[in-house]
Amino acid sequence: MTTGFTIWFTGLSGAGKTTVSRLVEAELRARGYKVEVLDGDVVRENLSKGLGFSKEDRDTNIRRIGFVCELLTRNDVVAIAAAISPYRAIRDENRARVGGHFVEVYAKCPIEVLAERDVKGLYKKALRGEIKNFTGVDDPYEAPEHPEVVIESDRETPAQSASKVIAKLHELGYMR
Amino acid sequence: MTTGFTIWFTGLSGAGKTTVSRLVEAELRARGYKVEVLDGDVVRENLSKGLGFSKEDRDTNIRRIGFVCELLTRNDVVAIAAAISPYRAIRDENRARVGGHFVEVYAKCPIEVLAERDVKGLYKKALRGEIKNFTGVDDPYEAPEHPEVVIESDRETPAQSASKVIAKLHELGYMR
Repeated sequence: MTTGFTIWFTGLSGAGKTTVSRLVEAELRARGYKVEVLDGDVVRENLSKGLGFSKEDRDTNIRRIGFVCELLTRNDVVAIAAAISPYRAIRDENRARVGGHFVEVYAKCPIEVLAERDVKGLYKKALRGEIKNFTGVDDPYEAPEHPEVVIESDRETPAQSASKVIAKLHELGYMR
Repeated sequence: MTTGFTIWFTGLSGAGKTTVSRLVEAELRARGYKVEVLDGDVVRENLSKGLGFSKEDRDTNIRRIGFVCELLTRNDVVAIAAAISPYRAIRDENRARVGGHFVEVYAKCPIEVLAERDVKGLYKKALRGEIKNFTGVDDPYEAPEHPEVVIESDRETPAQSASKVIAKLHELGYMR
C-alpha cells in the first residue's frame, strides 16, 4: 500500500498557496512524513526555465509538475504543489495521473482583495497593462468545481487554512 | 539514514545505457528497492519538451534530471538516469547536488562500433551531416575521469554489465 499522495494548491497569485503549503509541510514533517513542496520558485528554477505564459507553456509547466508529483507519490512521498494552475483540464489530468491520491486545495480569494493587497505589486502592473497574460486580469482562471478543500485568505489565518487541509487529510484516511 | 542513491549512466547514443539501466532496475526491484528510471524517452516526454541540442539546452536538460534525482534520492528512492550527458561539469554538479550518493556508470564504446551497429540509423545520418549536433560526431563528449563503473557493450553482455553495477553497489555499501 502506498502512503504517498499529492496535495495540489491552485488559485490566483497572492491567494496564499505557498504560505499555507509551507505550514502543511511543517505539520506533516512533524508527524514523520516525507514531504516535498513544489512551489513557484522551486519549479521556475528547476523545471520550467524558458517557459512563458501562453496556454501551451502553462500547460507544459503544470504537466511537468504533475509528472514529478506522480514519481514522488508512487514512492511514498507527500508531494505538495503550489502553482496557479489556471486550467481545470490539466489539473484533472494530473489528478488522474497520480492515480487519484490527489487532494485539490482551492485558494479562493476575490481579485479585488488581491489587487488591494498586491504584495508583489503585480496586480497594479497587470491592471495598467504593463504585464500581459496575468491570471485573473487578462488571462483566465478556471476555479475547481469539486476541490477537496477551499481555503480563504481573506477570511481565515494561514494556520486556520492549514488546519482545514490537515482535517481533510484525516477525513480522507491519509493520516496514519 | 537515507537509503536512496542515484545511478547515473552516461555515454554515447547506442552504448547500452538504457538496456543496462533496465536490467539494474529489475534487479533492484526484485530486492525490494524503490526505483525510478529516467531515460531519454521518459525525460523527453515529461521534462524536456521544447529543448534542443545546444550546449545550453543540453545543460538545462541534464540539470533538470539532476533535480528529479535529488528529490528521489533524498526520499529513499533509487534514481537511475540514463542520458548521454556529454559535459563532465554538469554531471559533477549533479553528483554534488544529490549529496554524493551518486554512482556514475560510463557506458564506453568506440564510436566505430556504434556507427557500425547504428541501431537507430542516427550515426549514418550524422556522419552524412543530415543531423547536426550529434554527440561524438560533431558535438563533444567528455568521458568521465573517475567513474564508479565502466561498462563496455562491445566486450560484455548487458547481463554482465548489470552485474558489474550491482557488484559496485555492494562494494560501496548501497546494498542492504
